[in-house]
Amino acid sequence: MGAMQAAAILLAAGLGTRMRSAQPKAMHKLAGRPMLNHLIAACEGVFDKVVVVVGPDMPQLERAAAPHATVVQAERLGTGHAALQAAPLLDGFQGDVAVLYADNPLITADTLRRLREARQEAGLALLAMRPADPAKYGRVLQDPAGNVLSIVEFADADDAQRAVGLCNAGVLCAPAGDLFRWLRAVRNDNKAGEYYLTDLVPLANADGARVRAVEAPEAELRGINSRLELADAEAEVQARLRREAMLGGATLVQPGSVVFSFDTMLGRDVLIEPHVVFGPGVRVEDGATIRAFTHLEGCVLRQGAVVGPHARLRPGAEIGPDAHVGNFVEVKNTVLGAGAKVGHLTYLGDAEVGAGSNVGAGTITCNYDGYAKARTRIGAGVFVGSASVLVAPVALGDGAFTAAGSVITADVAPDAMAFGRARQSDKPGAAAAFRAARQGKKS
Amino acid sequence: MGAMQAAAILLAAGLGTRMRSAQPKAMHKLAGRPMLNHLIAACEGVFDKVVVVVGPDMPQLERAAAPHATVVQAERLGTGHAALQAAPLLDGFQGDVAVLYADNPLITADTLRRLREARQEAGLALLAMRPADPAKYGRVLQDPAGNVLSIVEFADADDAQRAVGLCNAGVLCAPAGDLFRWLRAVRNDNKAGEYYLTDLVPLANADGARVRAVEAPEAELRGINSRLELADAEAEVQARLRREAMLGGATLVQPGSVVFSFDTMLGRDVLIEPHVVFGPGVRVEDGATIRAFTHLEGCVLRQGAVVGPHARLRPGAEIGPDAHVGNFVEVKNTVLGAGAKVGHLTYLGDAEVGAGSNVGAGTITCNYDGYAKARTRIGAGVFVGSASVLVAPVALGDGAFTAAGSVITADVAPDAMAFGRARQSDKPGAAAAFRAARQGKKS
Amino acid sequence: MGAMQAAAILLAAGLGTRMRSAQPKAMHKLAGRPMLNHLIAACEGVFDKVVVVVGPDMPQLERAAAPHATVVQAERLGTGHAALQAAPLLDGFQGDVAVLYADNPLITADTLRRLREARQEAGLALLAMRPADPAKYGRVLQDPAGNVLSIVEFADADDAQRAVGLCNAGVLCAPAGDLFRWLRAVRNDNKAGEYYLTDLVPLANADGARVRAVEAPEAELRGINSRLELADAEAEVQARLRREAMLGGATLVQPGSVVFSFDTMLGRDVLIEPHVVFGPGVRVEDGATIRAFTHLEGCVLRQGAVVGPHARLRPGAEIGPDAHVGNFVEVKNTVLGAGAKVGHLTYLGDAEVGAGSNVGAGTITCNYDGYAKARTRIGAGVFVGSASVLVAPVALGDGAFTAAGSVITADVAPDAMAFGRARQSDKPGAAAAFRAARQGKKS
Repeated sequence: MGAMQAAAILLAAGLGTRMRSAQPKAMHKLAGRPMLNHLIAACEGVFDKVVVVVGPDMPQLERAAAPHATVVQAERLGTGHAALQAAPLLDGFQGDVAVLYADNPLITADTLRRLREARQEAGLALLAMRPADPAKYGRVLQDPAGNVLSIVEFADADDAQRAVGLCNAGVLCAPAGDLFRWLRAVRNDNKAGEYYLTDLVPLANADGARVRAVEAPEAELRGINSRLELADAEAEVQARLRREAMLGGATLVQPGSVVFSFDTMLGRDVLIEPHVVFGPGVRVEDGATIRAFTHLEGCVLRQGAVVGPHARLRPGAEIGPDAHVGNFVEVKNTVLGAGAKVGHLTYLGDAEVGAGSNVGAGTITCNYDGYAKARTRIGAGVFVGSASVLVAPVALGDGAFTAAGSVITADVAPDAMAFGRARQSDKPGAAAAFRAARQGKKS
Repeated sequence: MGAMQAAAILLAAGLGTRMRSAQPKAMHKLAGRPMLNHLIAACEGVFDKVVVVVGPDMPQLERAAAPHATVVQAERLGTGHAALQAAPLLDGFQGDVAVLYADNPLITADTLRRLREARQEAGLALLAMRPADPAKYGRVLQDPAGNVLSIVEFADADDAQRAVGLCNAGVLCAPAGDLFRWLRAVRNDNKAGEYYLTDLVPLANADGARVRAVEAPEAELRGINSRLELADAEAEVQARLRREAMLGGATLVQPGSVVFSFDTMLGRDVLIEPHVVFGPGVRVEDGATIRAFTHLEGCVLRQGAVVGPHARLRPGAEIGPDAHVGNFVEVKNTVLGAGAKVGHLTYLGDAEVGAGSNVGAGTITCNYDGYAKARTRIGAGVFVGSASVLVAPVALGDGAFTAAGSVITADVAPDAMAFGRARQSDKPGAAAAFRAARQGKKS
Repeated sequence: MGAMQAAAILLAAGLGTRMRSAQPKAMHKLAGRPMLNHLIAACEGVFDKVVVVVGPDMPQLERAAAPHATVVQAERLGTGHAALQAAPLLDGFQGDVAVLYADNPLITADTLRRLREARQEAGLALLAMRPADPAKYGRVLQDPAGNVLSIVEFADADDAQRAVGLCNAGVLCAPAGDLFRWLRAVRNDNKAGEYYLTDLVPLANADGARVRAVEAPEAELRGINSRLELADAEAEVQARLRREAMLGGATLVQPGSVVFSFDTMLGRDVLIEPHVVFGPGVRVEDGATIRAFTHLEGCVLRQGAVVGPHARLRPGAEIGPDAHVGNFVEVKNTVLGAGAKVGHLTYLGDAEVGAGSNVGAGTITCNYDGYAKARTRIGAGVFVGSASVLVAPVALGDGAFTAAGSVITADVAPDAMAFGRARQSDKPGAAAAFRAARQGKKS
């Protein structure tokens, strides 16, 4: 990037009326992360400073932007006006400043780098694209040498201008001093009475500054204005994530049915069956298998671990090497040791399970009394009988054994066997009598 | 529509041989509703009267058509013959009559309205389309003024006629008197010996009646003759439903993995994670969240409720405001109060749970004794300990508490604590002895 | 095929570096079956003998190839060298020999038959395709009569040659004697120092043997070199399986969300809801229904059975006629009799359930003591109360009844009622006291 510093102003004040949402538009998520944070992530590797312009009453956006500075655009007077709100935060800033949109969150760091490079060849650089359906986009008009002369809005364009395929993406970059001087010169003598960022192009040209366009794919530059477009953008993000996962050495049996989080980390020879959903914060080591209908969030799978089908791993779950979590099993804030097995219809919360232990079907850790959570400690080589109820705080020593159907309320010593179930008693013929009585009642 | 009445005859006698099914074709479902009922729903807003022509031995179709009248076409002698079976039910009917097909169920009310309007300008109006692959469709031949001269079947068409893109969709509309007179004039002197509805075009022309074609998209007019086409039609219906949901203000993270019912009702700022299936009769209020792998049917989610992942809501489930239903939880015929929580591996059937109550992991309501269902009443602020077994009929008063692992067979007073579990007893060293014995046996 | 015998040499020595996998490439699976076995299955109906060339240290491939013979290519010296390794195993073989690639596993038996037929008209036959993007494929150059003159690698091709759409798929077939003589004549005087199979074309032409190309769809002939291409191939295989299922009379509500195994067998009027995954070895009889989010493997569903949503059927599950398996239920190595019901949150392992029996919600069979599995035998007309724990080995006679929440450790006689739960005791006001104490502690 050379020695020169650069800053980015992210415009995030939009309400997103067409989203029909009570949330600010930039808070809507893609791959589990707000749009704004996708854009911030792309900017962080390219710009030295990031400033976010939000609307009034958007505390959640200010929190999402942190630690980056935010400024409130009190009135909605157009994109040029919005960008200008960032001026006080960039007072005295030496270097280039780019203006971007939080509802254009798919832009890549690579494209932003190309924008910065182009700026070094010109007084003002902007991003442009060639959309499949240019529809209502403003057209970028260039001279034969490729210098941008103006941007003509679709409504004002004649047929020849509309035939131009290159469209304005709205993003631009200029030296701080020029940018803010031009922004202050923008006028609002148009129908909407708004200050438009695109007016910087004629102002730069009038200043004798060269204006250059950098082309990028439509998939990166398209805006998100409705939930339909949000879903399209999500599909684009997911396609990128799936492709990276496969190139990295994971098998996705049916990639389109696997939904990743922006931060999912996968090792080599990881096998992901169809219909798997990742929330944030999942790391999967080499050779692990995630079977169908599994939901993961905030968890780690060590080498060779196998989870699912129909498993749910929640934050704090750590599944040890070659350990196994089976169907209809929920694991939360629990560490499973190497080779441990929790196969069926079990809830493990706030627990630890030692290496090689086996937790039988239908086991429930009772970790909550309505006020606080308590821990269940299961040692190594323990056999937790099926349908055991483990009332925390409780500890099962190494090699302990609980009888099937037991309620365990006290610690069990290592190698001890614990029982906590009633003795069976039968009433001969009582079922037949009951049926006769019930059938009589029914008829 | 003006003052004139109109009726629709729906031809639904088809067996659907290519479906390879024991069911009548029109009973196969799209978005959870039989094809026939999709067509009836489109007609009900446009026509004053609907008559359905079914085949012999199709009682399920007659039930599905109710309250609309049905008539049986005893012999399969062609579409013209089928339409004519409705004549007795429309005896003396003054107004237009349209003939439609139950295996063309994607037609919209808007298209039907345009058909009726076109009829007012002509003696006979018909629907036509321009299919991407016109293949074997009959071609609609028009004079330069756009009047339909004839419909030429693909087999009989010459190259010039085959080059015509406008194809007959089979649907037509005429004044009742004309329609039935023409239907009675149709002859079966063709190879198949059948009476064809398309013969009405030359008969109308011979009568000096103008014939007009109304174009509609192929997606609405295509027929369903095989399970492959049924799946394509389902995709079209789902695409419409997903689009409506998003336009209405719901976020579908991955729209293609969400399957709606024809009658799903969603509020604003509803979030639907990937892999969710809706059966009939679901209503979701504003701000509710449906997490992945959830199946819903006949239930209501109040504002801010969160269900799933891996939840199953069955008919009669009503999830209160801000209430939470977690993973591997089934709720049936049960009302959850505001803020109630049922987080893990639980079956709630025929129950009510008061506001703010917490139902622990692994709780089972025992609502059935093989003969009848009984209710479980849980008050407000109740803490149901994990792995509780609630044997209905049973009531837990406000503020009651059940100890984890208890079988509760009798009512619990408000603010009381109930225990129903065995005392634990341990045998030191017994697990080690057991292992030694078992290992000896194995080796 | 006439009387002449034919053999196939399958080249499977590839490591698949681009797969980034520790597994041999040909072991990666499509529809649950290794690529190699897909190709073997296509060959078995067409060739009398199959020989597989593997790389060193690929015991899993040798096992997968069985009972077909394998030979190890010790050094990686090119495709021609690899094919030649099979010569000793085909010593004296009279008939045609084809050479195929394990990473081209989508080829159909029909295409292989056409290759054999073409060989009877020529001295050497090869497979060719017209890829949508011919990119870097070698071009097949023919004389006006359609005889193949040569194959020009993309790198060596001039513009006119690159304009040829017909590309080499690599597969070829010749009489055994010719094939091995030509293979021995191939030289490695090229940049890579490898022996190329494509050199057989000039050698055959030099021998005066006619060379013919057989065209087949790209979808069959494309190779699998990365996990992206593996996923594309899986999509192709699944599309074929879904199409067959629908043509056979099964309804797939959303075909793209149903993932089949290569060997799934479906009857007529089977209904498969969205999001269903089949492992190997599943057979579904007429009129059965598989609801959403169900995972099946190694099991049988008899006529009219209904499973799911959210069911898991594991190997050895046999669901009887009109029996029902509901949500969050796992069934393993268990036979359910006609009309039996297991509706909710249950684990049935190593069990049998008689006709018409009802297994209540939350029932757990305890079939494993850490060393061995034991069986649970449930007779006909039994009512297993909800939340029963059945400690195997145990038998419940016909018409028996277990009380909800019971731990059953001993056999129950026919028509008897069994109890195995503690008596409830309540402490009035204790919950209120507990809350007061806990709240005090918290504040």
